Amino acid sequence: MLDYAPDLDRVFQALADPGRRLMVERLSRGPASVSELGRPLDMSLAAVLQHVQVLEASGLVRSQKAGRTRTCSINPVTLRSAENWIAGRRTMVERRLDRLGEYLAQTAGQPEPAWAAEPGETASQHEEQQ
Amino acid sequence: MLDYAPDLDRVFQALADPGRRLMVERLSRGPASVSELGRPLDMSLAAVLQHVQVLEASGLVRSQKAGRTRTCSINPVTLRSAENWIAGRRTMVERRLDRLGEYLAQTAGQPEPAWAAEPGETASQHEEQQ
Repeated sequence: MLDYAPDLDRVFQALADPGRRLMVERLSRGPASVSELGRPLDMSLAAVLQHVQVLEASGLVRSQKAGRTRTCSINPVTLRSAENWIAGRRTMVERRLDRLGEYLAQTAGQPEPAWAAEPGETASQHEEQQ
Repeated sequence: MLDYAPDLDRVFQALADPGRRLMVERLSRGPASVSELGRPLDMSLAAVLQHVQVLEASGLVRSQKAGRTRTCSINPVTLRSAENWIAGRRTMVERRLDRLGEYLAQTAGQPEPAWAAEPGETASQHEEQQ
């Protein structure tokens, strides 16, 4: 991976619109012109162009003009960065829940731990959780 | 996976803010109170609460009030839905680029295809790309 850090604010903002997600969906199947991207959307060409500009500013989409046609294509590196950010957090959550599950399975049926009977000792720990 | 379709507009919108991503990051390590979530952020408790509400509305975060403390935790199912959406598109792009690469490798050094010499035949195909 190149030293390339997309602006996640802009990437997630770009993906927060259903019309723009439809454009990303279309572009994942291959390059398309701006008018082709707008075809399934009930909006003016100006509005379509604005969405394309948001996608370009986020780094999700690149475009090239040849004559009067602007052809857009997707940048998989940016898609992957956004995916990696989410996957990193999700993996952390799932590992933690797995460990918790294992702990609960191991301790099931065991007598209450010592600290349960000594509230004085856990007061500061409890404070941390507040 | 349960029959659960999070609102991707709201999920990506929630992730489009660096403060909220920091909260998700923190919660992926374990549950936390609202004031704990706000600690690394230079903002009022009211502002922190507003961000927490955006995260809750998106389904990324759940919270529970016990006494005066609201404890937040992350919902990995929502994280996974957002991740899956991006991964689906990214995989499609990469497969397409792989196929294109294979095609180019196979045809490298071969004579020009017939259509390259017959522009008339490809005019309509070219039109499609506009």
